[in-house]
Amino acid sequence: MANGFRLEKDLLGREPVPADAYYGVQTQRALNNFHLSGVPLSHFPRLVEGLALVKAAAAEANHALGYLETREHDAIQHACARLMNGDHHDQFVVDMIQGGAGTSTNMNANEVIANLGLEFLGYEKGDYQQLHPNNHVNMAQSTNDAYPTAIRVGLLRSHSMLVDALSELANAFASKALEFDDVVKMGRTQLQDAVPMTLGQEFRAFANTLREDVDRIANLNELLKEVNLGGTAIGTGINADPRYSALAIEALARRSGIDFRPASDLVEATSDMGAFVLFHGMLKRLAVKLSKICNDLRLLSSGPRTGFNEINLPPQQPGSSIMPGKVNPVIPEAVNQVAFDVIGNDTALTMAAEAGQLQLNVMEPLIAYKLLDSIRQLSRAMTMLKNRCVIGITANRDRCAELVNNSIGLITALNPYIGYDNATRIAKEALVSGRSVLELVREEGLLDEARLEALLSPQAMTRPRQMKD
Amino acid sequence: MANGFRLEKDLLGREPVPADAYYGVQTQRALNNFHLSGVPLSHFPRLVEGLALVKAAAAEANHALGYLETREHDAIQHACARLMNGDHHDQFVVDMIQGGAGTSTNMNANEVIANLGLEFLGYEKGDYQQLHPNNHVNMAQSTNDAYPTAIRVGLLRSHSMLVDALSELANAFASKALEFDDVVKMGRTQLQDAVPMTLGQEFRAFANTLREDVDRIANLNELLKEVNLGGTAIGTGINADPRYSALAIEALARRSGIDFRPASDLVEATSDMGAFVLFHGMLKRLAVKLSKICNDLRLLSSGPRTGFNEINLPPQQPGSSIMPGKVNPVIPEAVNQVAFDVIGNDTALTMAAEAGQLQLNVMEPLIAYKLLDSIRQLSRAMTMLKNRCVIGITANRDRCAELVNNSIGLITALNPYIGYDNATRIAKEALVSGRSVLELVREEGLLDEARLEALLSPQAMTRPRQMKD
Amino acid sequence: MANGFRLEKDLLGREPVPADAYYGVQTQRALNNFHLSGVPLSHFPRLVEGLALVKAAAAEANHALGYLETREHDAIQHACARLMNGDHHDQFVVDMIQGGAGTSTNMNANEVIANLGLEFLGYEKGDYQQLHPNNHVNMAQSTNDAYPTAIRVGLLRSHSMLVDALSELANAFASKALEFDDVVKMGRTQLQDAVPMTLGQEFRAFANTLREDVDRIANLNELLKEVNLGGTAIGTGINADPRYSALAIEALARRSGIDFRPASDLVEATSDMGAFVLFHGMLKRLAVKLSKICNDLRLLSSGPRTGFNEINLPPQQPGSSIMPGKVNPVIPEAVNQVAFDVIGNDTALTMAAEAGQLQLNVMEPLIAYKLLDSIRQLSRAMTMLKNRCVIGITANRDRCAELVNNSIGLITALNPYIGYDNATRIAKEALVSGRSVLELVREEGLLDEARLEALLSPQAMTRPRQMKD
Amino acid sequence: MANGFRLEKDLLGREPVPADAYYGVQTQRALNNFHLSGVPLSHFPRLVEGLALVKAAAAEANHALGYLETREHDAIQHACARLMNGDHHDQFVVDMIQGGAGTSTNMNANEVIANLGLEFLGYEKGDYQQLHPNNHVNMAQSTNDAYPTAIRVGLLRSHSMLVDALSELANAFASKALEFDDVVKMGRTQLQDAVPMTLGQEFRAFANTLREDVDRIANLNELLKEVNLGGTAIGTGINADPRYSALAIEALARRSGIDFRPASDLVEATSDMGAFVLFHGMLKRLAVKLSKICNDLRLLSSGPRTGFNEINLPPQQPGSSIMPGKVNPVIPEAVNQVAFDVIGNDTALTMAAEAGQLQLNVMEPLIAYKLLDSIRQLSRAMTMLKNRCVIGITANRDRCAELVNNSIGLITALNPYIGYDNATRIAKEALVSGRSVLELVREEGLLDEARLEALLSPQAMTRPRQMKD
Repeated sequence: MANGFRLEKDLLGREPVPADAYYGVQTQRALNNFHLSGVPLSHFPRLVEGLALVKAAAAEANHALGYLETREHDAIQHACARLMNGDHHDQFVVDMIQGGAGTSTNMNANEVIANLGLEFLGYEKGDYQQLHPNNHVNMAQSTNDAYPTAIRVGLLRSHSMLVDALSELANAFASKALEFDDVVKMGRTQLQDAVPMTLGQEFRAFANTLREDVDRIANLNELLKEVNLGGTAIGTGINADPRYSALAIEALARRSGIDFRPASDLVEATSDMGAFVLFHGMLKRLAVKLSKICNDLRLLSSGPRTGFNEINLPPQQPGSSIMPGKVNPVIPEAVNQVAFDVIGNDTALTMAAEAGQLQLNVMEPLIAYKLLDSIRQLSRAMTMLKNRCVIGITANRDRCAELVNNSIGLITALNPYIGYDNATRIAKEALVSGRSVLELVREEGLLDEARLEALLSPQAMTRPRQMKD
Repeated sequence: MANGFRLEKDLLGREPVPADAYYGVQTQRALNNFHLSGVPLSHFPRLVEGLALVKAAAAEANHALGYLETREHDAIQHACARLMNGDHHDQFVVDMIQGGAGTSTNMNANEVIANLGLEFLGYEKGDYQQLHPNNHVNMAQSTNDAYPTAIRVGLLRSHSMLVDALSELANAFASKALEFDDVVKMGRTQLQDAVPMTLGQEFRAFANTLREDVDRIANLNELLKEVNLGGTAIGTGINADPRYSALAIEALARRSGIDFRPASDLVEATSDMGAFVLFHGMLKRLAVKLSKICNDLRLLSSGPRTGFNEINLPPQQPGSSIMPGKVNPVIPEAVNQVAFDVIGNDTALTMAAEAGQLQLNVMEPLIAYKLLDSIRQLSRAMTMLKNRCVIGITANRDRCAELVNNSIGLITALNPYIGYDNATRIAKEALVSGRSVLELVREEGLLDEARLEALLSPQAMTRPRQMKD
Repeated sequence: MANGFRLEKDLLGREPVPADAYYGVQTQRALNNFHLSGVPLSHFPRLVEGLALVKAAAAEANHALGYLETREHDAIQHACARLMNGDHHDQFVVDMIQGGAGTSTNMNANEVIANLGLEFLGYEKGDYQQLHPNNHVNMAQSTNDAYPTAIRVGLLRSHSMLVDALSELANAFASKALEFDDVVKMGRTQLQDAVPMTLGQEFRAFANTLREDVDRIANLNELLKEVNLGGTAIGTGINADPRYSALAIEALARRSGIDFRPASDLVEATSDMGAFVLFHGMLKRLAVKLSKICNDLRLLSSGPRTGFNEINLPPQQPGSSIMPGKVNPVIPEAVNQVAFDVIGNDTALTMAAEAGQLQLNVMEPLIAYKLLDSIRQLSRAMTMLKNRCVIGITANRDRCAELVNNSIGLITALNPYIGYDNATRIAKEALVSGRSVLELVREEGLLDEARLEALLSPQAMTRPRQMKD
Repeated sequence: MANGFRLEKDLLGREPVPADAYYGVQTQRALNNFHLSGVPLSHFPRLVEGLALVKAAAAEANHALGYLETREHDAIQHACARLMNGDHHDQFVVDMIQGGAGTSTNMNANEVIANLGLEFLGYEKGDYQQLHPNNHVNMAQSTNDAYPTAIRVGLLRSHSMLVDALSELANAFASKALEFDDVVKMGRTQLQDAVPMTLGQEFRAFANTLREDVDRIANLNELLKEVNLGGTAIGTGINADPRYSALAIEALARRSGIDFRPASDLVEATSDMGAFVLFHGMLKRLAVKLSKICNDLRLLSSGPRTGFNEINLPPQQPGSSIMPGKVNPVIPEAVNQVAFDVIGNDTALTMAAEAGQLQLNVMEPLIAYKLLDSIRQLSRAMTMLKNRCVIGITANRDRCAELVNNSIGLITALNPYIGYDNATRIAKEALVSGRSVLELVREEGLLDEARLEALLSPQAMTRPRQMKD
């Protein structure tokens, strides 16, 4: 063997592994096999932590049941603690897209933990008789229960990143709503002038539609807390002690601080991807909302001279090499693209979920990848949107007021007082002549000035009121 | 005007309408404009009922507030009652795909109700001075609050159809699970022989994965109960009495038996499609589950001679004009296709939701169409699957037993007793020689007969057990 | 048997069929089995014609080879001729979504043709000894070659409907382009003011982007002309005469006027859905283009006072019951929704194509359904868009000119003459002060009037020019 | 300024840039703004080369027209040559997902080329008076023409990677087809036993379906050769010399060896994404085919004891930590997941294409990203499938023969000789009794042995033959 490598052995024979690698032969085979997305497991630290927590919980249960010796148990706990501490994540080298239903990911974890444990115990890397990736680290587990459980842990540990970004973005919109509460502007439906509202109402709607999703995500998180740890290969629990599942899940809950609970039907739970499908459906909903909001921000700031120009987005970079002074809404544009990517992820994940056969869904690595990618991209996009766009938005008050005063939609507010026929006639006349509705109403003496002023006050136009007084 | 038509008039002028039509000029214009999907509103009776309930509730509130006279109110209630009774649904003629954000649907309802009310009052069709589609039937409403509310009513009224079909299908699988509880068979992961399980466990997993969705759908239904009735054009409630929204929603809840409640931010609620996106995400999840189950049923019944052949699906139609005696799994195949159609609907709905701009989502007609179509197709597909497939499934017990006895996967059950090395060696030998695992274990005398019998009993192989005894 | 029914028999036993039905027992079973989409085969006349042409061509070949008697042949030809004439399409009753890989569709055709043939020969319906749906009408065919071939015929016969609508729409945009060639307006990139162009250029781009697709569709049509007729069950041609395939395809080409040719690998052709996937990808591309164009039309006509307001769409229906005088862009809005539906169809079709297994794609009924639906909806949408929108569009010339003159983007045209630094400084000053770029340039005396006039002429601004003169 | 940074300046002010960076202030701003996908431009070397080729071609044209001095021209050419040589790709640091319609990518290229050019000329980095990213490198270009052109160059330069992998995979299947031409096996339709074929026919179909796509991809590549270089900001060619476009495109064609040609309507070409949508539709078709093939490989190799077991895939890694001896079809499983990811990319790209507005599609960065990702993942997946799976596949000849002999589908070959009624009866009896069709036919003396032997020879069953002899 050339320097710099050690030989390891598995079912298929011997294979060189870099001498300083904490991973082993099975990880090496997966590295040889899968060179696809170019995104390694280490790209998602929460997933690595999920694997470490599952392995630590399993070892604790196996030790308590007397299957694992204290020395072995301590070595495994030490190794897992180092991974939780963020060390050695670079040893998680397998491509996120892989065959084998996650076996390579599981073995990557088993091997790294075994070799870290061996180091702790004072042995050489690869001396698996002392601490074995399969016999000890993977004891009582199958990829088919350990891996989906680790994914769930990883997703739930990503929760705060997602929800914090979401809450802060919602708060930023809410602050702007307060700031803009006295800016009366025209509402638009179907891109046509509708009736007046405040810019505050518009921004508060952005805040509220996002805030709803904080609760909604928390609600769907519950689905992810059902785990199949202890189901082993196909959910029947073959080769696991009957007491193991409850012990391991209890340990996992305690160690992670997340109230995991056993799935009620482990056979079902081993192949079912329903929780992931629905959870990503929720991420897609968030992507749709963000995209809609960014479309609106881009419309409202269109111009400066030939568009709506009701608001200004803070400039973040020059917009053009050929058009001097042009500044573009680059931040919302980027959010739109993240949203489309997340929606594409949903298609991929749906196909992967549908392709599951019989006792296992072999496409789970893609499902995990797309979920983790969507959570991360959405989190980053929301933080970017808040910091680099929303908090710097300003209103063009004069422009908003001018559009209200010139609008034909004002007539709607007068409708109950001058009648639908008069209103329609005046609206048409305003459109043809280019004159203002107010001017025409005054000219015809349809309402006195006091009444007009009352009806056209912001308070009157932007909320309900009694019509017969 | 030729016989058989009456002339009606709107903003754009006069237009002939069939003399006996209960719908009026605006419906006629929509008929002229939109000839697209070929699916009229009447195709979805629950939506028509939703419109009738909203109109009845609005009339009740307007009457209570003194804006609508008793005579007008009674005529509207009479008309709505007839629609709830299933009469005149053929008058809902507009294409499900339409421009105008649902205005044509709303006006179709307003006009039919006005003309039915006129008939009740003893007037001619079209004599709108007596009862006006806009002034009376649509009073205090905008399409933008009445239509989304009616969609929600329609969806929630479709709930029992969906959930009944789902529950009955789950029950049918559960009955089969009981029937098959003593059929030991090989589980498969990644289409490769894994470890034993019972056919009952496999079918119970189908039952359980579907039962989960009963609760889940009920849970998401809650989102649909928030309505924006009273928000009028853009959620600011312009031209509505401040007391109207609460009264109308209370009336709607009472009349429909569904606990509707006002959205907390009516501006947000007017443009937000989030509840629809997530609800259809749930329908997509159900579609994915059904497709996976049907894939499994087709695999398990593959053969009769060259496939798995563990179960038999009841024949429903001859399978081939060229191959005598061939019978195909046509029922699950049809369910797969419905599932794909529903997943396609999800893409369409997602794009429609994303395309909403500013104060309104103008693509809502497509959203309503896809939701109602998915609910109906899934309901029908599940009822078909239950009646024409699941309840008639039989097990090939001998075949299942033979596959277990011949399988190499049996070795997994012996693994903790003969050791991983022996197990791997014997598995390889069995594969190469074509001999059975049991035979080889006996030959080597690795375990005595009593132990073997105990380990390979169905009870031992299909559930957890203690390994050190 | 109750009156009004006749009994027919198949592999599964006897089954009543309506006495006056031309379809028979297998169609009846499919009717009993599949009640899903609610869309029957008759909804797509081109598909029915495709089936008739395939059956006529097969009969001709079988007759020429001596397998089919003249009497039988003539009866089949008569029946097919009636179907081509549009008669009895209501007998094609099976749901477009069906299990069995199209067997029910194929048998629906076989049975209707047999019974029409029996009528021609003077026999009772159901007297299949005289003319048998399988033995005679389906002779030398399998669903697996006859059905995909019929789909291809149906699609190619839909071609003119699609391409005519497309060409006419493109022409309508081209006419408008000529009309608008002297209307100078501001171009916008990223919704921000960019540089001047003519409205004619903008509409010509719409025309050209659509015209490209006429050729592109014709090009992809070629893929549909490869058929597997003669491959029978799995492409090996079992039970077909070696001369049959060529004869039948030649007859099909002659009868349809379409140059069909045999696929080079019939086994491959029997399961491959690639041509359908790519052809629908083309339809999706068209949908994307139409949606983009309609988004633009809605933006350009936004207003009338608070939007871009550069063009007017012809009003087609009143826009609001609550807002007097409001007219909405309902036609483009409906086109957007058709586009989204087509894109959703693409997802469904893709999943169906991917789900094919081994020697056949059993999901082909869904694939046919989605293709035919997309073609029809796109055709109708384009015709609607042309007739009810494009041909009535008018330009707001003054508004366009005013936006150009006020725009800051004008500075780009002066950039090569006053330098990037001056240009940027003036752009910023214009933005802050609200003054016009021209005014500021004049004030600073950066260019003389003659030069300014030359540079800012429409000719100068809307095409390339030499910069050093 | 702290050590290690230099200050650069743009429209928004001064910004520190790492002192040794070849990129400049605008790239730095994009780095600050966009931290989303985590995938930098350098991840796609073909795109970097595309940018270099476009910049070199533009410089050549500008030099020829006298706008660029020889010294400037030479510096730019030197810089581009280094990038073509693979140097300094790590300087392309901007995230693939970015706002600004590609401006940041374009400026990243402009800045790196300017600084490499400055180095060549003997100046400091950032001394842009000598060679300016905008004034010189970007001369006569806009992001809106240079960037889409560079994407096209990048895609076409990826062509050989894709098509080589595809051709080699097709060839591998074709070799296996030859090897398996004498292996008779049962064909299956709808997962049910159909009629015999050879394993060679089955693998040849895989080869042929892939080979078709070599031509098809080449055909669609033509669409990518139309470029809008010279259209500048919105296709009107503002600020470009009328001779520039032709010269630049000619230079690009010569330098790249690809016959680029100008789009006929530059305004249309600037916003149209049709070529990308259709090209990715083609990639999706390839993904669908690969996924179908891999589904088949997994089915055919299912077992070893409880599945089809007709072929063996070469083992690549141990399949299970809990089930000794288990080997899984990990390579096809990974290909399936790549296919789903590509199909998800198609959804994302479609939405991005649809979202284009007015004179430009601002979502083009996502479109480029998804195209390049799909091409690369497909290429890698096909190479993996060939090397690590297809070339090592072996046939289980005995198993295949046994399944044919036991199958009921054999009866189809006898159908024309014993009649449909006899055939159906015997098929049923075989199914019920478990006996073989051949045995029953012999027992009834329906055909003599010589005839049976002739009819059931592989030659007879796996191709067409005359039936009346």
